[in-house]
Amino acid sequence: MTPEERLRHLGIELPEMMIPAGSYLPARVTGDLIFVSGQGPWHAGGLVKGKVGRDLTGEQAREAARLTGLNLLAVLRRELGSLDRVGAIVKVLGMVNCAPGFNDTPAVINGCSDLLVEVFGEAGKHARSAVGMAELPFDIAVEIELVAEVVRPGP
Amino acid sequence: MTPEERLRHLGIELPEMMIPAGSYLPARVTGDLIFVSGQGPWHAGGLVKGKVGRDLTGEQAREAARLTGLNLLAVLRRELGSLDRVGAIVKVLGMVNCAPGFNDTPAVINGCSDLLVEVFGEAGKHARSAVGMAELPFDIAVEIELVAEVVRPGP
Amino acid sequence: MTPEERLRHLGIELPEMMIPAGSYLPARVTGDLIFVSGQGPWHAGGLVKGKVGRDLTGEQAREAARLTGLNLLAVLRRELGSLDRVGAIVKVLGMVNCAPGFNDTPAVINGCSDLLVEVFGEAGKHARSAVGMAELPFDIAVEIELVAEVVRPGP
Repeated sequence: MTPEERLRHLGIELPEMMIPAGSYLPARVTGDLIFVSGQGPWHAGGLVKGKVGRDLTGEQAREAARLTGLNLLAVLRRELGSLDRVGAIVKVLGMVNCAPGFNDTPAVINGCSDLLVEVFGEAGKHARSAVGMAELPFDIAVEIELVAEVVRPGP
Repeated sequence: MTPEERLRHLGIELPEMMIPAGSYLPARVTGDLIFVSGQGPWHAGGLVKGKVGRDLTGEQAREAARLTGLNLLAVLRRELGSLDRVGAIVKVLGMVNCAPGFNDTPAVINGCSDLLVEVFGEAGKHARSAVGMAELPFDIAVEIELVAEVVRPGP
Repeated sequence: MTPEERLRHLGIELPEMMIPAGSYLPARVTGDLIFVSGQGPWHAGGLVKGKVGRDLTGEQAREAARLTGLNLLAVLRRELGSLDRVGAIVKVLGMVNCAPGFNDTPAVINGCSDLLVEVFGEAGKHARSAVGMAELPFDIAVEIELVAEVVRPGP
């Protein structure tokens, strides 16, 4: 199955790509790489906000990271035309809006990493850091950026 | 207009490149990419320091981000010989020294992003994350690193 | 001397590579680059934990950063077969688990940067940011990720 087929098989529908909240692009392609801007847990109803460990549990934050992953996929599809043009996920930087003392950031970011592996299989496995931030834009609970490999269109 | 011409047209003079405060290089070229080390809001008179939302307003921090952008340009020019060898700005990581509760980090980092677009035009538009840090070196208000595409010298 | 010879000459023995604490890979190669996941100050006895400036001194944190560097080398050797296949260290992101008010993050991360130069010489010099985080996984004192250039095996 291709990533797009797997997505349908999993019954996942991607959200609309969010318009950047600043003077920047959702993503930039250079050579065989695409750098995707930090995405957050936004959905039709708004943003998932708050400090993890105080306003949200770790499990709720993990769900927010999965939602953030869906937004990363939405950017990749929009920029490349199809998720089938993603050759591999290379690197993820997962940033958690931590209340003081909350440090199980890897479990939170697994919500996104697991999604990437569900959709891309082996090619979805990536290098990663998962760390705790003092603040994130608009108090979102999680922000995640990534670098992926792009498959060039055939001849 | 080339980036160097645009810079002159805007009447912008770049600061001297700051010597790294540690065991590292201002930038490293690899293939067609240049990775620029995190720069801060330094100028002839010193460093812009403090927590944004407490010691500095968001608007002052945005100015500090613009100043940081000038320092990024200074590194790019010094490493590449000319800004005209920058093919595109690929990715910016903007880090704001946030007082608790200050989270309008995108508006702060726009100070740098807007400068990059003024100087490079469409090629200056980039992927980005703009996030809030617990601490930055020497308490500087903003730190920004970037990845850019390098144009190889013609034959 | 090659990096492997230099390591022996320095009498440095690398630790076992740590198994990732989440759904991700220790590193991912793409083109001529390898992206290494954030590593921490782990050793046979456990993790170096705590807030720098409160639970650890800057000097202790610098040692933790050197230990983290050894773990980065362990990943590079395991992924590439030998450190001699590292062409250059391109970019380091050093993240320090800061107590409020501790901001001499460059001196801490020098513990890793100096090690990289000891082992790789000129090729070990890199672009870098060294910043202060609100929280790191499991309260480790330091986390560092890097991007390096890979030398392709000869024909």
